[in-house]
Amino acid sequence: MRGAVLYGPHDVRFEDRETPDIIEPTDAIIRIAATCVCGSDLWPYRGLQPLNGPTPMGHEYCGVVEEVGRAVRRIKPGQFVVGSFATSDNTCPHCNFGYQSSCVKREFISRAQAPFLRVPQADGTLVPTPGVPSPEQLASILTTSDVLGTGWFAADAANVKPGTTVAVVGDGAVGLLGILSARQMGAERIIAMSRHESRQKLALEFGATDIVTQRGDAGVAEIMDMTDGIGADSVLECVGTQQSMLQAIHAARPGGYVSYVGVPHGVELNGEELFFAHVHLHGGPAPVRKYLPKLIDLVMSGAITPGKVFDLTLPLEKVADAYRAMDERRAIKVLLQP
Amino acid sequence: MRGAVLYGPHDVRFEDRETPDIIEPTDAIIRIAATCVCGSDLWPYRGLQPLNGPTPMGHEYCGVVEEVGRAVRRIKPGQFVVGSFATSDNTCPHCNFGYQSSCVKREFISRAQAPFLRVPQADGTLVPTPGVPSPEQLASILTTSDVLGTGWFAADAANVKPGTTVAVVGDGAVGLLGILSARQMGAERIIAMSRHESRQKLALEFGATDIVTQRGDAGVAEIMDMTDGIGADSVLECVGTQQSMLQAIHAARPGGYVSYVGVPHGVELNGEELFFAHVHLHGGPAPVRKYLPKLIDLVMSGAITPGKVFDLTLPLEKVADAYRAMDERRAIKVLLQP
Repeated sequence: MRGAVLYGPHDVRFEDRETPDIIEPTDAIIRIAATCVCGSDLWPYRGLQPLNGPTPMGHEYCGVVEEVGRAVRRIKPGQFVVGSFATSDNTCPHCNFGYQSSCVKREFISRAQAPFLRVPQADGTLVPTPGVPSPEQLASILTTSDVLGTGWFAADAANVKPGTTVAVVGDGAVGLLGILSARQMGAERIIAMSRHESRQKLALEFGATDIVTQRGDAGVAEIMDMTDGIGADSVLECVGTQQSMLQAIHAARPGGYVSYVGVPHGVELNGEELFFAHVHLHGGPAPVRKYLPKLIDLVMSGAITPGKVFDLTLPLEKVADAYRAMDERRAIKVLLQP
Repeated sequence: MRGAVLYGPHDVRFEDRETPDIIEPTDAIIRIAATCVCGSDLWPYRGLQPLNGPTPMGHEYCGVVEEVGRAVRRIKPGQFVVGSFATSDNTCPHCNFGYQSSCVKREFISRAQAPFLRVPQADGTLVPTPGVPSPEQLASILTTSDVLGTGWFAADAANVKPGTTVAVVGDGAVGLLGILSARQMGAERIIAMSRHESRQKLALEFGATDIVTQRGDAGVAEIMDMTDGIGADSVLECVGTQQSMLQAIHAARPGGYVSYVGVPHGVELNGEELFFAHVHLHGGPAPVRKYLPKLIDLVMSGAITPGKVFDLTLPLEKVADAYRAMDERRAIKVLLQP
């Protein structure tokens, strides 16, 4: 088969790779129906995260089970399934606490931009959909694998509740789906921080009530103005830089909640500053597996259409174009079809 | 009157200071019944926090109201009262959210090691006790003003619940009262990190179930062993250094809660490390005012005796000896009587 391999900054190749086989008895092999490029793929693509040699890429996926190992009980060949970017046995203490993305058997999926994928811990990682998604549902089902699950975690970790005021830092696909999630959780006011017209439009469609185009201190000042000087109850940090993190912390009220869901790059938080900000801080790799059953339901019932974040669809072999379009912010998120 | 003034490292003087008067109509003047030295007083005493000239000291207090300003309605002369180290109007949005220590009218009390004290925002800051505390109750009532309120916040902010496993980093008075608080909140297992025999004894008396004498990575390893490799549900960080903060973060399970309640000194948290630790983090100046009614009840009813943290009582004029005893760790906490 052929799949995506990152060789270095701005150098993604679509090239021959071995078709995966069952290795562990708990594995499954999936025939990918759709995959995509993640915002986090752009860190190494831009050279901001070191590579250890040529690296197969991709961790968002859904598709049909081709084959399962002999220890797999729940997942069956022929099922249409979605899985998290982090594998989990879904039975260890961390999984039982709802932190499947810190499962003792966690592995990070990293070869999903390909026609076939080996998924370890298949029984704990994969969730079957009720029937095969229609072509219209496919993009939205794909989002549950990471980008929606991560946006949902951002809202959950920031304690979004009915009636609260929420600010979202970052207008990438995760931020946009954080808005959709906050809306689903009943937030009264959702302030999107965005300076790109097409993203503002989607933010409003997903449930944002206000747009702030300023960044940094000016953006924080605008949020303070909008909340009578109090600050937001919940702030979702969906970028991962020092500036965005401080922007999020400063936009929250004392006692408010700040979540951060992308791997921070170059972020250092000063203890004293955090202390006097008086906020709750929670983040990490999103426990997507916990949310998958609910998110699949919401998509299949038509309650939400998170697949709208895909504003470009390409055949998998054009994966290099997909990276380029996202890097240059010509696309919010690119769906790839094998 | 004479009160404590810090001139520089290890230089506390008991000297003439102006007796305080009502300045704002919302002020009260208190005749101090008991005050004490706080662990946080030791940072500037040790030269680890810069001074801006000679600085009157003290922020833990209880006593009898001498006089109130003309706008004070609830607090009356003659009442025995306790107040927080942070003043609050108890009506602003932050106060209503339970974060009185970030009140829009917050001032930090800093002249309480003296016979008289001016307390701004008297109606919002002070809470009368039901009758005058007995000599036996006085020390315990004094703790509600800061050290117990802060230990209680540490347990609350770390989400201590019935049945949980709690670790406490730091065996100073705040850490010890964090243990007492966790016990009151129903924690099943409370692991005290302490290497001092007298403090271990008090920790066990306050409700600790286990003692860990190792620090740093070795201490974390011991906690991991004791929790079957899972980590603690809640960790109370009651020191404020880089080492203690990392120790706390590493001792918590993914999805666990870490609180920090002393002003961090020289603490820098790496975003990526925090992300993969997957913990909740919350701290700041303890909203003591929120807890005062409950804590006063617990003390006056005899349910708790937090005053046991005072292992030395001195007349106020010996305040320099009090600082010395705490600096040299000869005393856990020193009560001062005017």
